Amino acid sequence: MKFSVIVTLKKDVLDPQGKVVQNTLQNLGMSDLKSIRQGKYFEIDINNANEQIAKKKVDDMCKKLLANLIIEDYKVNKIK
Amino acid sequence: MKFSVIVTLKKDVLDPQGKVVQNTLQNLGMSDLKSIRQGKYFEIDINNANEQIAKKKVDDMCKKLLANLIIEDYKVNKIK
Repeated sequence: MKFSVIVTLKKDVLDPQGKVVQNTLQNLGMSDLKSIRQGKYFEIDINNANEQIAKKKVDDMCKKLLANLIIEDYKVNKIK
Repeated sequence: MKFSVIVTLKKDVLDPQGKVVQNTLQNLGMSDLKSIRQGKYFEIDINNANEQIAKKKVDDMCKKLLANLIIEDYKVNKIK
């Protein structure tokens, strides 16, 4: 069972990496760009046919390793 | 107008970063984990009310800077 996890910085946390990308794109002539923020993406394959249990495992992984809950939020979605 | 962009390594490209995360999670006791692959995520805000034009701009950004099309794929989605 496959899940996608998106980890993003919380709204009020500075994103220096995103800022560099934003400046670079604006220097490339993308004047319509208002803002860009960068995050992490994971595609996780779980060996468990029970969706609830599998989702719980992914949730545990996010809390233990993938996301720093002090400065980051995460979203889990099932991929069909 | 906001878009999300997900950049992932192509299927046959090795993902050493994902492999490290996978080993770490397995060492943490996540035995159900079959595989995990890492990618990049961007949230892009465009100053343009025309969805088609805005999407085209995001597409240009991906091709010019955000994704390396030789080894990576990207997906653009509108965020309502």
